[in-house]
Amino acid sequence: MTGIDLLGYTAGAITSLTFLPQVLKTRKEKSAKDISLFMFVIAAVNEAMWIIYGALIDNWVIILTNVIILTMSLIMIYYKFSYK
Amino acid sequence: MTGIDLLGYTAGAITSLTFLPQVLKTRKEKSAKDISLFMFVIAAVNEAMWIIYGALIDNWVIILTNVIILTMSLIMIYYKFSYK
Repeated sequence: MTGIDLLGYTAGAITSLTFLPQVLKTRKEKSAKDISLFMFVIAAVNEAMWIIYGALIDNWVIILTNVIILTMSLIMIYYKFSYK
Repeated sequence: MTGIDLLGYTAGAITSLTFLPQVLKTRKEKSAKDISLFMFVIAAVNEAMWIIYGALIDNWVIILTNVIILTMSLIMIYYKFSYK
């Protein structure tokens, strides 16, 4: 693995965790008024597209990364309806 | 271009616009209390990594996509400090 590969894998790992601070903050504060529902709906649909794309080209990095982000997007959609 | 390529490009185009609804909502409502600053700081650092990675492998799709997302992340960080 080259340094460039390592940078790509590290960037991908961080991407998969981008939504985590928002999930934790919303869970703690039980307030989601300022959160855009539409953003997380777009994100969820988009991640489903990436998962299908990953399956079609048989790329497990794309599949797994987007399963993680999709899960967090669905949690944020649930919080948005729960905490208003 | 195959159908699979088209799915990948479409998914990428949507990814670059994921943060737009949040930017527009926050701009309109001038309230960012529930927004995680840490999420957008992680996103901004991560997109800078993707831009460097894109430059190193000479991939303009990765560079341009992440320049768009980085711009929106920086706007959200600015809003977070402006609107509290």
